[in-house]
Amino acid sequence: MARRVEASAPARPAAANDRASHGKGWRTGLTLIEPNRILVRGYPLDEVMGRVSYGEAVYLLLVGELPTPAIGKLMEALLVALIDHGTTPPSTQAARTVATSGAPLRACVAAGVLGFGTYHGGDIEGCMQLLERGVALARGGRTYEDVAAELVGEFIARHEPVPGFGHRIHTHDPRVARLFQMALELDLDGQHLKMVRALERALNATRPPDSHIPINVDGAIAAVCSEIGLAPAVGSAMFIISRVPGLIAQSLEEQERERPMRQIDSSAVVYDGPKERRLPGTRK
Amino acid sequence: MARRVEASAPARPAAANDRASHGKGWRTGLTLIEPNRILVRGYPLDEVMGRVSYGEAVYLLLVGELPTPAIGKLMEALLVALIDHGTTPPSTQAARTVATSGAPLRACVAAGVLGFGTYHGGDIEGCMQLLERGVALARGGRTYEDVAAELVGEFIARHEPVPGFGHRIHTHDPRVARLFQMALELDLDGQHLKMVRALERALNATRPPDSHIPINVDGAIAAVCSEIGLAPAVGSAMFIISRVPGLIAQSLEEQERERPMRQIDSSAVVYDGPKERRLPGTRK
Amino acid sequence: MARRVEASAPARPAAANDRASHGKGWRTGLTLIEPNRILVRGYPLDEVMGRVSYGEAVYLLLVGELPTPAIGKLMEALLVALIDHGTTPPSTQAARTVATSGAPLRACVAAGVLGFGTYHGGDIEGCMQLLERGVALARGGRTYEDVAAELVGEFIARHEPVPGFGHRIHTHDPRVARLFQMALELDLDGQHLKMVRALERALNATRPPDSHIPINVDGAIAAVCSEIGLAPAVGSAMFIISRVPGLIAQSLEEQERERPMRQIDSSAVVYDGPKERRLPGTRK
Amino acid sequence: MARRVEASAPARPAAANDRASHGKGWRTGLTLIEPNRILVRGYPLDEVMGRVSYGEAVYLLLVGELPTPAIGKLMEALLVALIDHGTTPPSTQAARTVATSGAPLRACVAAGVLGFGTYHGGDIEGCMQLLERGVALARGGRTYEDVAAELVGEFIARHEPVPGFGHRIHTHDPRVARLFQMALELDLDGQHLKMVRALERALNATRPPDSHIPINVDGAIAAVCSEIGLAPAVGSAMFIISRVPGLIAQSLEEQERERPMRQIDSSAVVYDGPKERRLPGTRK
Repeated sequence: MARRVEASAPARPAAANDRASHGKGWRTGLTLIEPNRILVRGYPLDEVMGRVSYGEAVYLLLVGELPTPAIGKLMEALLVALIDHGTTPPSTQAARTVATSGAPLRACVAAGVLGFGTYHGGDIEGCMQLLERGVALARGGRTYEDVAAELVGEFIARHEPVPGFGHRIHTHDPRVARLFQMALELDLDGQHLKMVRALERALNATRPPDSHIPINVDGAIAAVCSEIGLAPAVGSAMFIISRVPGLIAQSLEEQERERPMRQIDSSAVVYDGPKERRLPGTRK
Repeated sequence: MARRVEASAPARPAAANDRASHGKGWRTGLTLIEPNRILVRGYPLDEVMGRVSYGEAVYLLLVGELPTPAIGKLMEALLVALIDHGTTPPSTQAARTVATSGAPLRACVAAGVLGFGTYHGGDIEGCMQLLERGVALARGGRTYEDVAAELVGEFIARHEPVPGFGHRIHTHDPRVARLFQMALELDLDGQHLKMVRALERALNATRPPDSHIPINVDGAIAAVCSEIGLAPAVGSAMFIISRVPGLIAQSLEEQERERPMRQIDSSAVVYDGPKERRLPGTRK
Repeated sequence: MARRVEASAPARPAAANDRASHGKGWRTGLTLIEPNRILVRGYPLDEVMGRVSYGEAVYLLLVGELPTPAIGKLMEALLVALIDHGTTPPSTQAARTVATSGAPLRACVAAGVLGFGTYHGGDIEGCMQLLERGVALARGGRTYEDVAAELVGEFIARHEPVPGFGHRIHTHDPRVARLFQMALELDLDGQHLKMVRALERALNATRPPDSHIPINVDGAIAAVCSEIGLAPAVGSAMFIISRVPGLIAQSLEEQERERPMRQIDSSAVVYDGPKERRLPGTRK
Repeated sequence: MARRVEASAPARPAAANDRASHGKGWRTGLTLIEPNRILVRGYPLDEVMGRVSYGEAVYLLLVGELPTPAIGKLMEALLVALIDHGTTPPSTQAARTVATSGAPLRACVAAGVLGFGTYHGGDIEGCMQLLERGVALARGGRTYEDVAAELVGEFIARHEPVPGFGHRIHTHDPRVARLFQMALELDLDGQHLKMVRALERALNATRPPDSHIPINVDGAIAAVCSEIGLAPAVGSAMFIISRVPGLIAQSLEEQERERPMRQIDSSAVVYDGPKERRLPGTRK
């Protein structure tokens, strides 16, 4: 008998069920472990080390094949884009709060990951589904403007926000501009990026000029992930992967610099890190 | 009044307490967030994207400065080395078990991170502390062999295993050999790597020839992390960062290929992924 | 702007939004903490201790008022009913798997709680919503049989299981019979219990006699929780509250009796606890 | 080879290792599950329901035998004592922070449980070990005063706090007085309670009169749990069991009353629940 699947769980197509394990034996296609031998998607892990970037290895593991060099560069940029976002996100606050109780680092990270709820990183998957639907409609012969107007209209009629648009803090998120610029330079500026911009125009055509709702970083990541062929569940997972070092750095800073059991009021934080600085010339 | 700290929590030196927040104001030196501006350790994040690898960005965030290019390459290799290790580690089993209940991906990842207990990844921090102690003793004028024999003797006298040695599966872990080779090629083969090899010799000098205990991947990572200047808590965190894509890939595969609520018996798994294959020539 | 809510998150009625905090001040109606004074829902906690059972205190905290003595007895029975269910549920397997890595008890419990996914305890909330809908329809003047046939028909048409029916192991779950008997004896056998039985009849009227689908423990708990006035989100939470001691007992047994890092195969477990025994006569 | 155990993990005596599973078969002594049959520690669960309180069932599951009626009453009082403590504990803040991201209730509870770090509930286990050591010394013929002075002296010499003494908020915690009064009335006021009071006198004999350090609720729970025969790991677990309804109530209130993604400043909370009220006369 079929069972119901939580909204956020991956869909379970008939084909997948046909492949499901029967009896005790079951299968994995990810990693082969034998004594002194580790293959990830068929490649010996020691051969991959030093020859494939981490972003490329993440793509290999999650998609099954090595990416093109251009996609590999975009994967690394995606991971860098979300590595930390200061002290205010719920994920970071959850990690710091657990850290203040004296818990081990693993517990801080786990609590932080649990703080990626519907309202925090949850737009990536929904925006990817929206973009895929839009691109499919456009492939049927309609213009991007026409499709985008219809899709935006649906959300407005339901009084729901369009996933991937609007941010608590940034009106022109520097990560968004940079991701789109890189996609352009790497010749990865295809239908999904065209669609997300069409949606932005359609959404703001309905609004007064002084209340522009920009593409947010979830929306930009959704567009780029769709463009490079990631499934929506995988695109959404990129946020978790990327932010773990941020959760770790924030938890370690909490335990190094603050007294235990404090009440964390994020409105009272003062940045005392390095002043703005430029990358060395060799990096540009 | 001072309070006790869990063994796995970072020590809290007097200097750190002096810097602790008083009253409501508190400080962060990691990331500055202002409208349309994000600085990580002083660098604009959009400038970092595409110019700094993810491994370098992790180093920047956790250590505070950009690494040298050689250290950056080793950081990427470290992250790749631990990206997945099949279906048997407790972290992976915990993630798959939560996945089989139909839980969202975030819950699977959090449960997986909680499965990095004392016996699973827990050796990195202890081995780094051991290596730091050994290197400090050797700097005092004693030979590495002499220091290593003393340190190993302490563990044997307490009937405790030496952290960083011995593995459930691998006797010659291919990741260990590759990490040491890369450290050599990148000219990062210094005192801590010398010490871990001295410990291996000292440990096995006490054992019959057919029961060699090798450096395990925790030990190799500990040596390399110490060599490139990471603190023990940060070295230990590298395992968590690296393995999150593995937890995600395994959880997604569980939900795509298997029926819900199954009993997972890891001894019954069959690998049906790609046969062993080589990297394309351009990668070598 | 309204935001989307995950299926499992509580609905956010307009009235709740009107009460939402503005600016920095916010409110709680649960517990007042002042130096040397603790009020839970207005009652001094020290006065409650020893005079109110834990099940009654849970009701007080979650509902806001003390229950009647009959409801209090049913609350304790509900909590007892789910206290443990052996080694096979995903929640228990997740807790044991984390325990085998040497993690602290808190981490085992947290992983266990994360293992309560859609397919495991997730039916309580859905069944409560179904029962509330059915009772509302019946109050409009239709017979329970008529309403139940319509509701069951909807699930069958969508090829979805009816929440609260069918169990992996039990065809006549002893907890179900006992809960219904207690509800009858305590005069708490009202409309929601009537409706769940009507649904059972309607569901099985569509099936061959040898494939009876029984009310499961989720369904029985849903009916009883609806009957005593718990909201669906609270009824669902009863499962979590009740099972935590089971997660703890299983994790402690894992760490006391088994070797670390073992592969847990739940099909190979043997029960070696006490033989079946009766409660002492004074308990009956 | 023996492996190291995290400080908070239960010790693994040789006897336990001897009992460890070999090969695939392994054993559980907790709960027997067969179709239509559930035994907890040998008792049919349906027979236990309605005849044994939840506190008694927790004791049965964790200790292996039914408690005496007096111990059963104290178990319920212990569970009630810790059911909630307002909005400021790290566990509650972690749960609310995850709730504000729109996460499901399970994720909120798991994050809350992870917030029980060293500094928050962590004193119960340490205090129980201290009391057991003290009682063992007193059984050797020394006076409680003499033993307590020696034990307190050790902590003072190490500049460490004595576990179970001192509280952030309460100087005369009402839960402590009530627990001790109940233990007295139930004739459970034995050696461990005598020892905790001796420790309080010895600790404060070293301090000026205006800086009295009281027994805190962790210390009172430790004394009572030791008195009724719980192992330290089990006593410590009582805090987790008891507080889960508090984590749930706080998370549900957060999602019902507050806007998503808010910054939680616990210093700005206002209590708007019922005014102080008395239990109905029938409860006294």
